[in-house]
Amino acid sequence: MIQSNGRKRVVISNVSPQIEGGQYPAKAVENETITVSADVFSDGHDEIDARVLFKHQDEQEWSSASMAFTVNDRWVAVLKLETTGFYQFKVQGWVDHFTTWQKGLQKKYEAGQDVNVELQIGAGLIRQAAEYAADSDKVELLNYHAGLQTQGDTASAVLTALSGELSAVMRRYRDEDLVSTYPQTMLIEVERKKAAFSTWYELFPRSAAPEPGKHGTFNDVKKLLPRVAKMGFDVLYFPPIHPIGEKNRKGKNNTLTPGSEDPGSPWAIGNRTGGHKAIHPQLGTLADFKSLVKEAKKLNIEVAMDIAYQCAPDHPYVKEHPQWFRWRPDGSVQYAENPPKKYEDILPINFETEDWENLWKELKSLVDYWIAQGVTIFRIDNPHTKAFSFWEWMIREVRKTNPDVIFLAEAFTRPLLMERLAKAGFNQSYTYFTWRNTKYELEEYMRELTKTDMRYIFRPNFWPNTPDILSPFLSWGGENAHILRLVLAATLSSSYGIYGPVYEFCVNTPHPGKEEYTDNEKYEIKHWDWDQYTRIKEIIARVNIIRKNNPALHTTWNLEFAESSSDQIICYGKADPESKNNLIVVVNLDPYNTHGAHVKIPLWQLGIRPGVPYTVRDLLSGSRYRWQDEWNYVQLNPYEMPAHIFRVEQ
Amino acid sequence: MIQSNGRKRVVISNVSPQIEGGQYPAKAVENETITVSADVFSDGHDEIDARVLFKHQDEQEWSSASMAFTVNDRWVAVLKLETTGFYQFKVQGWVDHFTTWQKGLQKKYEAGQDVNVELQIGAGLIRQAAEYAADSDKVELLNYHAGLQTQGDTASAVLTALSGELSAVMRRYRDEDLVSTYPQTMLIEVERKKAAFSTWYELFPRSAAPEPGKHGTFNDVKKLLPRVAKMGFDVLYFPPIHPIGEKNRKGKNNTLTPGSEDPGSPWAIGNRTGGHKAIHPQLGTLADFKSLVKEAKKLNIEVAMDIAYQCAPDHPYVKEHPQWFRWRPDGSVQYAENPPKKYEDILPINFETEDWENLWKELKSLVDYWIAQGVTIFRIDNPHTKAFSFWEWMIREVRKTNPDVIFLAEAFTRPLLMERLAKAGFNQSYTYFTWRNTKYELEEYMRELTKTDMRYIFRPNFWPNTPDILSPFLSWGGENAHILRLVLAATLSSSYGIYGPVYEFCVNTPHPGKEEYTDNEKYEIKHWDWDQYTRIKEIIARVNIIRKNNPALHTTWNLEFAESSSDQIICYGKADPESKNNLIVVVNLDPYNTHGAHVKIPLWQLGIRPGVPYTVRDLLSGSRYRWQDEWNYVQLNPYEMPAHIFRVEQ
Repeated sequence: MIQSNGRKRVVISNVSPQIEGGQYPAKAVENETITVSADVFSDGHDEIDARVLFKHQDEQEWSSASMAFTVNDRWVAVLKLETTGFYQFKVQGWVDHFTTWQKGLQKKYEAGQDVNVELQIGAGLIRQAAEYAADSDKVELLNYHAGLQTQGDTASAVLTALSGELSAVMRRYRDEDLVSTYPQTMLIEVERKKAAFSTWYELFPRSAAPEPGKHGTFNDVKKLLPRVAKMGFDVLYFPPIHPIGEKNRKGKNNTLTPGSEDPGSPWAIGNRTGGHKAIHPQLGTLADFKSLVKEAKKLNIEVAMDIAYQCAPDHPYVKEHPQWFRWRPDGSVQYAENPPKKYEDILPINFETEDWENLWKELKSLVDYWIAQGVTIFRIDNPHTKAFSFWEWMIREVRKTNPDVIFLAEAFTRPLLMERLAKAGFNQSYTYFTWRNTKYELEEYMRELTKTDMRYIFRPNFWPNTPDILSPFLSWGGENAHILRLVLAATLSSSYGIYGPVYEFCVNTPHPGKEEYTDNEKYEIKHWDWDQYTRIKEIIARVNIIRKNNPALHTTWNLEFAESSSDQIICYGKADPESKNNLIVVVNLDPYNTHGAHVKIPLWQLGIRPGVPYTVRDLLSGSRYRWQDEWNYVQLNPYEMPAHIFRVEQ
Repeated sequence: MIQSNGRKRVVISNVSPQIEGGQYPAKAVENETITVSADVFSDGHDEIDARVLFKHQDEQEWSSASMAFTVNDRWVAVLKLETTGFYQFKVQGWVDHFTTWQKGLQKKYEAGQDVNVELQIGAGLIRQAAEYAADSDKVELLNYHAGLQTQGDTASAVLTALSGELSAVMRRYRDEDLVSTYPQTMLIEVERKKAAFSTWYELFPRSAAPEPGKHGTFNDVKKLLPRVAKMGFDVLYFPPIHPIGEKNRKGKNNTLTPGSEDPGSPWAIGNRTGGHKAIHPQLGTLADFKSLVKEAKKLNIEVAMDIAYQCAPDHPYVKEHPQWFRWRPDGSVQYAENPPKKYEDILPINFETEDWENLWKELKSLVDYWIAQGVTIFRIDNPHTKAFSFWEWMIREVRKTNPDVIFLAEAFTRPLLMERLAKAGFNQSYTYFTWRNTKYELEEYMRELTKTDMRYIFRPNFWPNTPDILSPFLSWGGENAHILRLVLAATLSSSYGIYGPVYEFCVNTPHPGKEEYTDNEKYEIKHWDWDQYTRIKEIIARVNIIRKNNPALHTTWNLEFAESSSDQIICYGKADPESKNNLIVVVNLDPYNTHGAHVKIPLWQLGIRPGVPYTVRDLLSGSRYRWQDEWNYVQLNPYEMPAHIFRVEQ
């Protein structure tokens, strides 16, 4: 035996989406359309056909979707997957002898050739199909077979042979022995919509007390929930809520000499009162936390928990599982370092421990524990400093039983590591958006995220700031900069978030020489006047309502840049074909000066006929403009409003 | 057990060359350098290291080549493979704890920190390495171990710890349990040099008779061998030499009404006297053929045979193996067709036959038979109309026993089919060069061939003409066009060929309405005056000598285009670093008019310092020019010589 079946003539290659040769799934959310494509071709000049077989993990039978030829031997099918979980798909192709025969018959008949023998050949193909056919089609096929063989009226036999009805029934059958299948079965993971469309607000619960100088509690946060909901956020994310290490605790501004009142960094996790499964006593009880999570859900807000797999030196693990840490020859435990810098309040976990299996199980059990308390979203701290194989295993295992759980990767590191974490299973990722300010930088970065295979792997979550990052653009550009960066984050990416209070109140004094806030909330308790008026607060709320009401903003993948005549004015379109929701966003990237520009509206993508006037309505200001043709003028004063979010209304 | 070993932290991805996920080999020739590259990275901030393991099919042990970091987590190693046959390679990576430790030690020491504990940690790493080390290194390592532990002179201990000698011996050892290996093993097929560097001349033996009106023979061809050798060709390729079908034979100019004298097309193979293993009686005997092959070899010319897997209606297969053909309901055999056109002198083979295994074996036996007669090169006719899986099997099987055999794919079809044939094993391929005339077209096409993965799969063989193709450029542009196309073919691609006599004598009258020769030699016997003078003949011979003497022309992959100020002047460099052979080719693409241009010489690639004069010597004319700096002027009159082939002489 030379090989299994040498009669199969169709070749299939370059199947997409295909992540690491099918090792990892492509990502989708419920009801998102996914385009499956492949190179499919055969030797010779015969017609071919192709299909995608797909099935959900819980299904036994494969469903089938016809593929359509596009160009250069590329075939595509558009799938819309409705159920969360894993789908498998495979691409198949075969020589379509019947269509080949039909086309030949037509040409010969039109050329006036004798087609009697041809009709007999076609009848033979129909009879053959009748053998594979479902009972319901057998009779019909045998009738066609008889019809084509009737000598006499050639014209009507040809008409029958080429009829759409016959083509339709014949397309259902083929010699399955001759069907080629691409050797790898690919995966698509379908998640709930929130994995792609989410609006995050970060705050430190300990700063939530209504009175200055007091340690905030979960109950204080509960009172802020209506405010968060009113501003349009649907994820409320807290830094770690666990007991904070007392040994080598950091003081204000990351100093090594804390006062006795200094609360320490929440990321230095664990002390004599407990570790990652415990709650910092001053925040309240587990019951308080669960009650907060429950209250939030009523307002359609999910609480996101921070998971930082690292320990303060007094974390219980250090004594209970010393084998999970590195020990120095002098008997001391190895703290985190970036020589010559030392981070003595933090112990990294040694993922090379020989006890790695127990370590992995314990780390997963933390996530399981908090899921049991009602948490559905986790923001993972610095995942790129923990083993990739661990994430792959942990996320897969958790999602087997809890497919709705979402993990956000807080990795600001090199491109391949960020991409790999996404492949390994993270459902959302922090990005380089924070440092992409110019039109060129933004367009280039968005192209990478939306027009490459990243689109199937890496779901961006755009953060203009975090407790660790105050970009120079924000610290120099004041409130105008905060507003325009928010509009960009909220309209370029379908998921975005802000480290909230400092953003709303435009706190933006950098720590000298660093891209970080001075008097950072990481090391001290703050008190916020939640009721103070700021222009940006109103705008945030409005932008979030616009996001909610416009399906075009519920995905990142539909982004298309449009030309603009100014380097300071960026313009892009987002369209949702199903709801016919078409937006054009224009942002002045300069926080200091008014700029005008001509922008080119992509009429044909919006279905607008050239020469016919159309209305664009600015969802931010409520103004309407009557436009005509492609190029139209916009002008934006950042002290009034640095952006338009136009909805196209014909 | 969660997985085999969760302690491995290094991730490897995107290994190159990688053809269809490792299913097919990348192609190389003896002593060609091949760059293996991969993304290799780990979590965290530790130093890592990587290597390529490779071995020839006949070797038991893996050889190892260190990889070097380039940029963006990409690592590379350059392999030079010396033995023909298949090599496997795999990429491995690991965390390099010793180098990580060294870098930390240095920083801490330079920052004035106490490093006594650090030195003990390093001593521990050395002792651990001594456990894996070869006996020859054990003592040295244990000495280092002792040296680092000696309390006292910290400065000299640090110096020892950071020494190149210690680094070198430590680099040889690591905990092999923690080494990550890319899951797929990749393949490289190394072939003899001729697979990449060959110069082809095509002629019809039946037109080789010295007297007009006579049928040429192998013995006539034998007399032409010195001429072919003198012109610098090393492959002499004949259209099929088998008996020509008598049934439905074609007449002159592809007519359906042949005279009794018409010899028919050699591609209509087989008649009552035999099929693919027989020789057309008028050409001579098998002994004559073998003698010709032998004579040619003495002149370093290999005879290439044409294999066309198709049959005349009177080929013996039709009776012996009717199951290999399609039969029509009226009992007639199916001829080739492209409806409404019929090609009744040709029967295609039905690769969907249920008797495919015997068919494949028989088709392979034809190749084996001619190999046994001394043939080493096959030009395969229209391989894209036969099953891809057959080629893959046949070429692999033939090359298992005859690794020096070369197959040239004569496919002028869609891009993916041409690429796939090359993946399936064809060693050389016809190309679109024949229709790429403008500077933009040539640069674009060469980029596709040399700067994409095509470079590892698809070895171009550039033909300005074939018996089937007379491009408009040649038929309009006369001898000047023939000369410039030859220079392009011979210098852009390391393999090229011409359908010789018509090219040498600039026969270029097209058949009306077709890109084909009128009075085509495919359907009639020609008589050539081999001694007539033509300008192009002298140039062909000179170009072929230049090709032979300049290693830079022995590969296609070193091509780099240079800027030129005229769209009619194309300029490119080819360099062979090993022999320091640096060429700059300039061609006037306009066969009618003189053009001048400034061309930009890539000084830094040639190792020429700016401002220092250098000499370029035109290997076509013998002239020397003294140039300086990047931009220099050239002018080419196509009636004199449309090209310069400069050798850079400093």
